[in-house]
Amino acid sequence: MMLKRIAVVGSGAVGCYYGGMLARGGHDVHFLMRADLEAVRAQGLEIRTRGERHIFPVHAHARSSDIGPVDLVIVALKTTANDVLEQVIPPLLHANTALVTLQNGLGNEAFLGERWGYDRIMGALCFVCLNRIAPGIIEHFDHGSISIGEWKRPVSERVSHLVAAFQKEGIDAQAVPDLVAERWRKLLWNIPFNGLSIVARAHVAQVLASSHLRGIAEDLIAETLEAANKLGCAIPEAYARWQVERSYSMGNYRSSSMIDYEAGQPVEVEAIWGEPWRAGIAAGVRMDRLETIYHLIKFLAEENLKKVKN
Amino acid sequence: MMLKRIAVVGSGAVGCYYGGMLARGGHDVHFLMRADLEAVRAQGLEIRTRGERHIFPVHAHARSSDIGPVDLVIVALKTTANDVLEQVIPPLLHANTALVTLQNGLGNEAFLGERWGYDRIMGALCFVCLNRIAPGIIEHFDHGSISIGEWKRPVSERVSHLVAAFQKEGIDAQAVPDLVAERWRKLLWNIPFNGLSIVARAHVAQVLASSHLRGIAEDLIAETLEAANKLGCAIPEAYARWQVERSYSMGNYRSSSMIDYEAGQPVEVEAIWGEPWRAGIAAGVRMDRLETIYHLIKFLAEENLKKVKN
Repeated sequence: MMLKRIAVVGSGAVGCYYGGMLARGGHDVHFLMRADLEAVRAQGLEIRTRGERHIFPVHAHARSSDIGPVDLVIVALKTTANDVLEQVIPPLLHANTALVTLQNGLGNEAFLGERWGYDRIMGALCFVCLNRIAPGIIEHFDHGSISIGEWKRPVSERVSHLVAAFQKEGIDAQAVPDLVAERWRKLLWNIPFNGLSIVARAHVAQVLASSHLRGIAEDLIAETLEAANKLGCAIPEAYARWQVERSYSMGNYRSSSMIDYEAGQPVEVEAIWGEPWRAGIAAGVRMDRLETIYHLIKFLAEENLKKVKN
Repeated sequence: MMLKRIAVVGSGAVGCYYGGMLARGGHDVHFLMRADLEAVRAQGLEIRTRGERHIFPVHAHARSSDIGPVDLVIVALKTTANDVLEQVIPPLLHANTALVTLQNGLGNEAFLGERWGYDRIMGALCFVCLNRIAPGIIEHFDHGSISIGEWKRPVSERVSHLVAAFQKEGIDAQAVPDLVAERWRKLLWNIPFNGLSIVARAHVAQVLASSHLRGIAEDLIAETLEAANKLGCAIPEAYARWQVERSYSMGNYRSSSMIDYEAGQPVEVEAIWGEPWRAGIAAGVRMDRLETIYHLIKFLAEENLKKVKN
């Protein structure tokens, strides 16, 4: 199955970068845009990477009905805006349209699968440092790998096609046989480090330098690991330790959640903490620490939004 | 045994109020003072209560060696300053000197008992709203009861004497047969409500209004109750529920910990969260939530002090 027509829903930094790289490579990519629509129509999409500026025209649309059915929808919305998808997705679908979610955390494949059928659903994990520095202009700082898999199915032809398409553009893409396990591997880092960046206002180096915060982080990782393994994702403890060890080189890195929080934006509370907590307790794992952190972040993020509105 | 000479160590609002009421009633009370020494020597001690101003001279001293041995030492220092006691207490002791700690949380009787003998030790819980509004001037807003007991012994003659002395001054004083249980009863409130006032910057009404924070509070209370009961303090679950219910009338009450934190002062982290957590896990109770909250507060309070110093 070939992926001829592609739509990108959620044209922030991630959507513009990965969709933009496919467009630059000659694929027929259509971006659904709101804030950046006029700028991109006038000047094209610009991706700055390693000192180079790539500027190229792309198809930008205000409504998904203007795009019509496609072979692949790349979903790159923030998970806090998922309700928008109810209106946006249907006009993009034909009988065999695939959807790949590049969103953070847990629950996004299920959100899409329950509404438009699990057969369509793929997921991807992006490890990339991007910033949208102006309308239609994306700066790519570091990394850029993407891991793509089917939802609870082995690697398929469409996954391989998409991986190959990204690789052709120089992106470090790979197919993953167990998407759910990959999501839990990433959560082993996001749950403690994004979490403490909000409840303790601490960046990565502060978490590691404080015996108190590092202790909380390690205990959260242990709970998360127990849940992941109980749910059938065999993740070795050594992998979890490595996640902590490799964080020492990150310095004052501010997590995406911390950036959202400090900017007064919605934080992806359910995707990163709520869904893993619910999945863990449904599997019979006691997750008192994650539960506490989740409810604290939920309260703090809601209060934060209220402050911004007033 | 009569309590003829009395010393007050830690002459903040609590020490000045309870010691001052005894002095006003004619007891021979000696206050160890630092910041307020000159003001009190010049103008006496002033207690404002229910629209009345009581001003009376008291014995104020800069060093405990100027006071010398007494029959009773009232310890009302903040627990974060306990190391000061090592120098201050010895000059006040004769063979039968009793010590009563009016301090918050857990571990204060043990601190005194380990150094100067458990036979001397009594403890008291104060339920009172006080404010030191100027040097030597204490404003009494509300409540004022004091519960006094021996350390792991039944009510004694000296407890009854002290209770009677306070009652004579119109204070709602009572002897308690199980001091440790009283401390845990108070912790059932302080652990969640003081705790969330720091980690979520939420006053009592906000904790109760948020399903997320109220849930954390109830779970912390359940852990605390389990620890208390495991440690032999039979506290009924209905008492814990009542602690939450009666909080609805407190409105925007700011806990003492919140006031300390916002003023850039040390927070009594060990007395309120650290000691109960250690006591609970030593008794075999799993206290993952309290552990998480304790470590968060420890980090936040330390960071807060650093900010003030810079």
